Amino acid sequence: MDIGTIAKPHDRLAETLAEDMAAVNAIIRTRMASKHAPRIPEVTAHLVDAGGKRLRPMLTLAAAQLCGYAGDHHIKLAATVEFIHTATLLHDDVVDESGQRRGRPTANLLWDNKSSVLVGDYLFSRSFQLMVETGSLRVLDILANASATIAEGEVLQLSAAQNLATDEAVYLQVVRGKTAALFSAATEVGGVIAEAPEDQVAALFEYGDALGIAFQIVDDLLDYQGDSAATGKNVGDDFRECKLTLPVIKAVAQATPEERVFWTRTIEKGQQAEGDLDQALALMSKYDTLAATRVDANRWAAQARKALCALPDHPLRGMLEDLADYVVARLK
Amino acid sequence: MDIGTIAKPHDRLAETLAEDMAAVNAIIRTRMASKHAPRIPEVTAHLVDAGGKRLRPMLTLAAAQLCGYAGDHHIKLAATVEFIHTATLLHDDVVDESGQRRGRPTANLLWDNKSSVLVGDYLFSRSFQLMVETGSLRVLDILANASATIAEGEVLQLSAAQNLATDEAVYLQVVRGKTAALFSAATEVGGVIAEAPEDQVAALFEYGDALGIAFQIVDDLLDYQGDSAATGKNVGDDFRECKLTLPVIKAVAQATPEERVFWTRTIEKGQQAEGDLDQALALMSKYDTLAATRVDANRWAAQARKALCALPDHPLRGMLEDLADYVVARLK
Repeated sequence: MDIGTIAKPHDRLAETLAEDMAAVNAIIRTRMASKHAPRIPEVTAHLVDAGGKRLRPMLTLAAAQLCGYAGDHHIKLAATVEFIHTATLLHDDVVDESGQRRGRPTANLLWDNKSSVLVGDYLFSRSFQLMVETGSLRVLDILANASATIAEGEVLQLSAAQNLATDEAVYLQVVRGKTAALFSAATEVGGVIAEAPEDQVAALFEYGDALGIAFQIVDDLLDYQGDSAATGKNVGDDFRECKLTLPVIKAVAQATPEERVFWTRTIEKGQQAEGDLDQALALMSKYDTLAATRVDANRWAAQARKALCALPDHPLRGMLEDLADYVVARLK
Repeated sequence: MDIGTIAKPHDRLAETLAEDMAAVNAIIRTRMASKHAPRIPEVTAHLVDAGGKRLRPMLTLAAAQLCGYAGDHHIKLAATVEFIHTATLLHDDVVDESGQRRGRPTANLLWDNKSSVLVGDYLFSRSFQLMVETGSLRVLDILANASATIAEGEVLQLSAAQNLATDEAVYLQVVRGKTAALFSAATEVGGVIAEAPEDQVAALFEYGDALGIAFQIVDDLLDYQGDSAATGKNVGDDFRECKLTLPVIKAVAQATPEERVFWTRTIEKGQQAEGDLDQALALMSKYDTLAATRVDANRWAAQARKALCALPDHPLRGMLEDLADYVVARLK
């Protein structure tokens, strides 16, 4: 597959969904307001205006349209999904003590951690109000479960990230929480609101789940092999932050006792010295774990693509297929 | 009214509702578990085991029983309300940088802020799952609105607490967010799940709202006139933390220009010196604002009591009436 021909399926989605997305953005503007606390829209606008790709709400819109939905509840659901995403970003920045997000200083830095925690709570409550307005208990159930999975995955990551006992199954659980749970909920609720047949709803869930997992694996891989000019991240940031991700987990699984000592020191104890990143990269190269991780990412992307077969033939289906390819094409 | 005769209506409620409360506690235990992240029940248990009066879930149970409810959804709703309360406590301790809660070190101190933020998010999601299980969109709507009011009130407090422009209307808004919104939602959903007539549902809302406001005003008053042995707080903590509460707001409203300089320095700028608390107390005494605040608390308690007239004659109604009296009897 040639990245040139499939470039930016995201932009094609944005173009196709432009009218609905304008309505979603209007709801986001209206609902992030607060009659009493002006700091809420200030903090939210800082994050919302910074852009972001709005990938998650587009997934909801695309899923609903693909299944022939003619109503307007998908607009509220797309805004719900973006609010949940924004709330988790605000809380993540507090948890990670981040200073930058989307190329701008984070809200916790510009205001304070308090504002980030409480405005995140507010947005989460607002998302919840929006879903209630759709009147679909099934949608509420899906998004409540996704929210619990997100929080659980983040808590799990607190203990798993620096623990050499973390295996691929735990990594997958964390990734589902961090990324895939909201992707799969975003696509699934689109099908549910459209009252699509059960096999299509299941396929939409599977697409979002696999796409989200591929997306996160690629992110973790780019940390070790990315072009820092393109990704805006430095090679090895995860290593320096002692975060166990898939390429390292695969190297730890095959480590000699001596190599294990190295990983224990650098990841579990966080004692790193000059040259350790090079040594880590050498060990990943020894076991070819970057290639093995790439294989995993491609497998998840292929699974996402395959799930779409159950869905109606539609131009949006082609764009979602291309999106799955594009996620892993970032690796080329 | 003699405090001896009405002592501990809360204990009588607990006795009367013991069977339901046991079921609520069982749900809390089950639902605070996490298949993947053992830190979640650790953090939650720390807070849940510390006791707390479980006043909010009892309000839901009492409201439902009072309206003749014979099902079991009120158990889930009571657990929902307690989960929302616990989630807000976890986040509050991060926001307030607290070190103690219910006489024990706070979770953010024992673990870290990250765990408190994320476990709070998890409990909030779990509460949401529980409500969905009741299948009542109206209940979901009430609790979503309450959650938004809580977060909004807390954000408002961030800017209002140290701002001399904060008047009684803003104070009331903050108090509704901090305390009354969850009280009124707790009582209202009890009536809704019991399918009580609308005037009774409205009365339950009004009772919870007025009770919550009285409760918080009394808390703020005890900070200045309490017996520190009984309250476990030092007199003037709010002043030292530069928090504008009703007794000070009333003094600021009547302040001479010179007194205003004092309040600006000590509250807005937070520049406090030896003797400032005594001066603050003297100014409150000059305008008799503690007595005026007491009048307000009594008025809200009376309003709570009066709201109950619309409800069926029932032993629980008597206990709720006594509870309203008891809240302000703490001032004697």
